[in-house]
Amino acid sequence: MWHTCDLTLKPHPRGFHLITREVVAALPELSTLRVGLLHVFIRHTSASLTLSENASPEVRRDFERYFNHAVPERWREYEHTLEGDDDMPAHIKAALLGPSLTLPILGGRLHLGTWQGIYLCEHRDRGGARTLTLTLQGEQEVRTASSPK
Amino acid sequence: MWHTCDLTLKPHPRGFHLITREVVAALPELSTLRVGLLHVFIRHTSASLTLSENASPEVRRDFERYFNHAVPERWREYEHTLEGDDDMPAHIKAALLGPSLTLPILGGRLHLGTWQGIYLCEHRDRGGARTLTLTLQGEQEVRTASSPK
Amino acid sequence: MWHTCDLTLKPHPRGFHLITREVVAALPELSTLRVGLLHVFIRHTSASLTLSENASPEVRRDFERYFNHAVPERWREYEHTLEGDDDMPAHIKAALLGPSLTLPILGGRLHLGTWQGIYLCEHRDRGGARTLTLTLQGEQEVRTASSPK
Repeated sequence: MWHTCDLTLKPHPRGFHLITREVVAALPELSTLRVGLLHVFIRHTSASLTLSENASPEVRRDFERYFNHAVPERWREYEHTLEGDDDMPAHIKAALLGPSLTLPILGGRLHLGTWQGIYLCEHRDRGGARTLTLTLQGEQEVRTASSPK
Repeated sequence: MWHTCDLTLKPHPRGFHLITREVVAALPELSTLRVGLLHVFIRHTSASLTLSENASPEVRRDFERYFNHAVPERWREYEHTLEGDDDMPAHIKAALLGPSLTLPILGGRLHLGTWQGIYLCEHRDRGGARTLTLTLQGEQEVRTASSPK
Repeated sequence: MWHTCDLTLKPHPRGFHLITREVVAALPELSTLRVGLLHVFIRHTSASLTLSENASPEVRRDFERYFNHAVPERWREYEHTLEGDDDMPAHIKAALLGPSLTLPILGGRLHLGTWQGIYLCEHRDRGGARTLTLTLQGEQEVRTASSPK
C-alpha cells in the first residue's frame, strides 16, 4: 500500500518546533498499516527536519542557540550574501540536520520512542509556510470475515 | 515482503561502537531478499546511528573527541541543564548524526561499501541498553520448481 | 516495483557538486512510477550526499569553506593520521552530512522543491570515482486497454 500527500504548515518563527501532531493528523491512512514506514520530506533548502526530545521547550531553545553559534551569520568567508544574513547559514544548518525523516510504523501507529518528537527546524527569519511531502508505505492489516465490524 | 523487529543492544560506554554484526545477526530474513532496503532506527534522543570506517578503532575514538569538542558540555548558553551535563549535548549530537540509516540490500546481503560499518553513537555517560527498530522490505528471490534443494 | 543499479560517477575535485541530472539519467524506470521513493546511497565513508540549493555555485563554495572550518585538518587531537591530513576530517564531514538521501516520487518524476538539488560532497583531495547505489520502489501507473500506445 502506498499513499502520499503534501502538507503545508502554517508559518513558524525561526527556531525549532514540535510538529508530530500535525503530521499524524494529516494521515488517517496510517492507522490501517500493520507494519510500514512513513517518509517525511521538506521541500525547502533553508528549513529542515529532525527527531528529538518532545517534552521540554528549553531543549528546543537550546537547539536554536547552539546552531546559531555553530553556523554564525555574517561570517567573513561567506560569498553568497545576496539573499540576507540568515540565508547561507540556513542552507548549512538544513544540510547538517537533513531534509527528511523515515519513521517506523507498527500496529497502525508511529513506532517512536517515548521521548521522540518530529521537529520542524525553521532556519530563516521569515521562512513563511513550509510544505512537507508525506509518503506512507507498508502492509495493511488483514481483516478476516469474522472480524468485528 | 515486510519484516520488523526490535533489537535491544547491551549497554555501551559513551563513544562510537561498531554494531553491524549484531544488526545482521538479528535478521535471518535478510538472506531471502533479492533486492530491498533495511531501515535501522534508534528509539532514543541521546544516542544516534551513523555509517563510517569499519576497520580502525582510532577513527571511532577521533569521532568521540571531535563531537565532544564541537558540542561542548557546560556551555554557558544551555538552558536545559537539569538532566546532567551530558544530556543537552547528547540531544544535539544525536540530531547532527541522525536517528536512522537506510541501507541497500542486494542478493540477500547488505550492499555496503568495503569500509562501511554501522556505528552506535552513545552520547550519554550511562545511556543503558538502547533499542533499535529494524524494518526490512523488498522483493524475495523467485524459487522455481527446478531450483536445487 | 523494485529496481536497483549502481552508478559510478566520474572523479570530482574536493568540494560540493550538483549531480541531480546524472542520477535521474541513470533511472529511466523512474518515469513509470505513479508514487514511490528513490534511495540514493554512497558506498564510501569519505564522501557524502546532501540536498541543497541548486542554482548558485557560490552556495556550494561556501559549503566547502564552512566544513573546512568546522572540521579542521591537522587538529592536534586526531589519532588517525596515517591516511593523510584530509582523511579523518573526511570521515567526520561524511557522518555530519550523511551517506544517503530518500526522495519522494510523484507522477513519474522526483517530487523535489524548486530549489533542491542533489549534491555529491567530495571530502578528499583525490577521492577518485565514487559509486552510488540507487534503489527505486513504488507503485506503477495503471495502463488501461484504452491508453494511447
